[in-house]
Amino acid sequence: MAAVSSRAPVSSRAPVLTPQAEDFPRWYQDVIAKAELADNGPVRGTMVIRPYGYALWERMQAEVDARIKAAGAQNAYFPLFIPESYLRREAEHVEGFSPELAVVTHAGGKQLEEPVVVRPTSETIINSFFAKWVQSYRDLPLLINQWANVVRWELRPRIFLRTTEFLWQEGHTAHASQADARDYARRILHEVYADFMVNVLAIPVLVGRKTARERFAGATNTLTCEGMMGDGKALQMGTSHELGQNFAKAFGIEFTSDSGLREHAWQTSWGVSTRMVGGLIMAHGDDNGLRVPPRLAPVQAVVLAVKDEAVEPARNLATALREAGVRVEADLRTDTPFGRRAVDAELKGIPVRVEVGPRDLAQGNVTLVRRVDGTKAPVPVGGVVAATLAALDADQAALLESARERRDARIAEVSSIADAIEATGSGWARIAWSALGEEGEDKLAAQAVSVRCLVRPDGSVPDSEDEPDLLAYVARAY
Amino acid sequence: MAAVSSRAPVSSRAPVLTPQAEDFPRWYQDVIAKAELADNGPVRGTMVIRPYGYALWERMQAEVDARIKAAGAQNAYFPLFIPESYLRREAEHVEGFSPELAVVTHAGGKQLEEPVVVRPTSETIINSFFAKWVQSYRDLPLLINQWANVVRWELRPRIFLRTTEFLWQEGHTAHASQADARDYARRILHEVYADFMVNVLAIPVLVGRKTARERFAGATNTLTCEGMMGDGKALQMGTSHELGQNFAKAFGIEFTSDSGLREHAWQTSWGVSTRMVGGLIMAHGDDNGLRVPPRLAPVQAVVLAVKDEAVEPARNLATALREAGVRVEADLRTDTPFGRRAVDAELKGIPVRVEVGPRDLAQGNVTLVRRVDGTKAPVPVGGVVAATLAALDADQAALLESARERRDARIAEVSSIADAIEATGSGWARIAWSALGEEGEDKLAAQAVSVRCLVRPDGSVPDSEDEPDLLAYVARAY
Repeated sequence: MAAVSSRAPVSSRAPVLTPQAEDFPRWYQDVIAKAELADNGPVRGTMVIRPYGYALWERMQAEVDARIKAAGAQNAYFPLFIPESYLRREAEHVEGFSPELAVVTHAGGKQLEEPVVVRPTSETIINSFFAKWVQSYRDLPLLINQWANVVRWELRPRIFLRTTEFLWQEGHTAHASQADARDYARRILHEVYADFMVNVLAIPVLVGRKTARERFAGATNTLTCEGMMGDGKALQMGTSHELGQNFAKAFGIEFTSDSGLREHAWQTSWGVSTRMVGGLIMAHGDDNGLRVPPRLAPVQAVVLAVKDEAVEPARNLATALREAGVRVEADLRTDTPFGRRAVDAELKGIPVRVEVGPRDLAQGNVTLVRRVDGTKAPVPVGGVVAATLAALDADQAALLESARERRDARIAEVSSIADAIEATGSGWARIAWSALGEEGEDKLAAQAVSVRCLVRPDGSVPDSEDEPDLLAYVARAY
Repeated sequence: MAAVSSRAPVSSRAPVLTPQAEDFPRWYQDVIAKAELADNGPVRGTMVIRPYGYALWERMQAEVDARIKAAGAQNAYFPLFIPESYLRREAEHVEGFSPELAVVTHAGGKQLEEPVVVRPTSETIINSFFAKWVQSYRDLPLLINQWANVVRWELRPRIFLRTTEFLWQEGHTAHASQADARDYARRILHEVYADFMVNVLAIPVLVGRKTARERFAGATNTLTCEGMMGDGKALQMGTSHELGQNFAKAFGIEFTSDSGLREHAWQTSWGVSTRMVGGLIMAHGDDNGLRVPPRLAPVQAVVLAVKDEAVEPARNLATALREAGVRVEADLRTDTPFGRRAVDAELKGIPVRVEVGPRDLAQGNVTLVRRVDGTKAPVPVGGVVAATLAALDADQAALLESARERRDARIAEVSSIADAIEATGSGWARIAWSALGEEGEDKLAAQAVSVRCLVRPDGSVPDSEDEPDLLAYVARAY
């Protein structure tokens, strides 16, 4: 806990955050400031990710990266700077991204002959290399991922959710057939993104298909994971796109098939970003701060020495927990008031707090505090490891379960556009896609409501928006 | 080995690289192309790091990151874009970096009111936040690191060694006293950088102090790790700077000391970059390609099935090696000629090659080929794990030893400037700093020779360039 600042004096248990019910957006900003997650940067819309916020992101990276590698993709790195002309090669893509571009016109003390854009996403530059690397069907599938920063000039920036610069991974693949590309886009959606979000972030995302209106610029199909936040709004947490042959034709990615014909490759791209940190805050946070799911938590347990006499036992307990595989920190700063340190651990959402005080110790006990439900219980010193492991397991499940209950309780079944708009005041609406259509989508948009995704009646992901009986999930979104 | 391209036909064992002795720079470019490490990007001086090159970088990151965290620093992330005015606040710093800046003048379809620079390094923006975060001596030391891309417009780019955009880590710290800052800059130099370079990269770097001429723009002292490459030139592999109070004064980083006085913080910054990949290639590579030290290698052993009958035994051996903790890949692509696959593993410098062929198998053997010394030996199937582990250990030591022998053999003891320049035709020269001085340094510079570092007679790092009896290492450098 070396980086925990102890400047702002916290008077015992007085609320340090605006309550969610009073002003959710302000609560969100308060959590980010008080849990020391991030700051605004000096250039409008940029952010500084502070050590605790970055530790959350590093854990997300590690979990997502392992799943991407298990899906067969390899990491690489492509340049930040893209010649402006590259962007123009795919018509819809340039139209979608032009208003958001940052452009370097001067470098090395001179005006550049051709301006370069700072990547808003890397389809154009990566596919220009795929065109060199792909010659034969033997070179396919080509499965590449990169972890990088990207820049999109935002008119209404919001920290973590919509920032001018953000960190993400972007996967780019080329396949010999449409079916293979389609399968891979779905594999990433389910095995990488939804698996991570449900089982690690404990956010029960809905997976579905975007409507044409909401599709990525240049894609033939966008698949999405949508999470419900604490205020009932939706957050797009990750997307996986089928690009068809759009970029392959724009960049000349051709291969000789096994029957000797020259064909254009079929492609996908997919990404998740630091926006997920915003989703984590808003999906699980409460009036006392963050609640971090144990499997994600960079610090799963903190052992606090209440007074000097407890320093040695606290240190020993931290060692025992570490040896049991728990990501643990010992907070031995007895020169800082105990209440302030406890509030700080609570703000940061550390799942288990082991409070080691002389009075409890005299009876052979410590106090185990669980962040998810706020329960406090005495635990014998010898039982701390087992109790902590049990709490971490139970609270991972409890967070997912309570997020699922909230989501299900806040989805209204409706049959008219007016009712759908009404329902999005406090949650999501589910409506037959046939009762909505693109015209209905326009009416929703006029009220700042959007179709988050289309799903089949059994909850699976449709192959087309023209399938019969599709359901649309409709919401206000971040 | 999924990403290994099999396009370029390699005719048995004909050399695929320009021999080092014929043209070292061309050999370097050949290795980068044939081992599929990197490509040039479309914007001059940028590079694409291909999967195998990136895997080397990921291993470097993991090893360096663990050492940085052990030294107490925490990762964070600061914006890519810095207001131009920030750069101007530290006079030497702006003078050093101005000629290399890339400037964004337009964004979101409009001209910006104040141009922003793409970070060439982050002292200015990070220290503007340190000024907010540091108030009391209790907030110190503040130890921050970031992994990021930076941009410096290069006139003579060279892939990995000097690129317009490169990847690095940059550490930035603030301390309550000059002594504490000085100690930390040295701790990073020795415990993070030199330890990693010697014990993982197997490059016996010299550590020393830069002369005033070679100092980082804005620093009061620059410490460096210098490696000798295969052609006898020097490569600056990493630097650690004491910044004194220069940035603290420019950005107002003040704290209340334990005696209640307001004081400016003392600072350090330090970094290593993708340039180390270039150092790895040039320090250990030979006419057959890369030689990757086992501790670094993303793939420590590859098990090659020579023919179809060997696929199953090869797969089993790979599993046994993986279970023994070896980073191993099975190459079961029996539809690709075996010779081509063996050459490819050699080009990529994979330390151990286990060749599994039907003839050897009939006798209960496989062939174990060691990349470092090129030896081939039959090994009983049941002894492969032990033989591989032994080879990995021995070859890590052998690479370091041979690099140390080359370095020591190529350092000439000289006493005149003319002899020093002469010696740098094939290696380094060591000369008394008193025989050189700043005037001598100017004469060397006129011949494109530089002082790489100053050390004490016992090899330790001096606290000042005015200490008596200092020795200067002099070389041509990348």
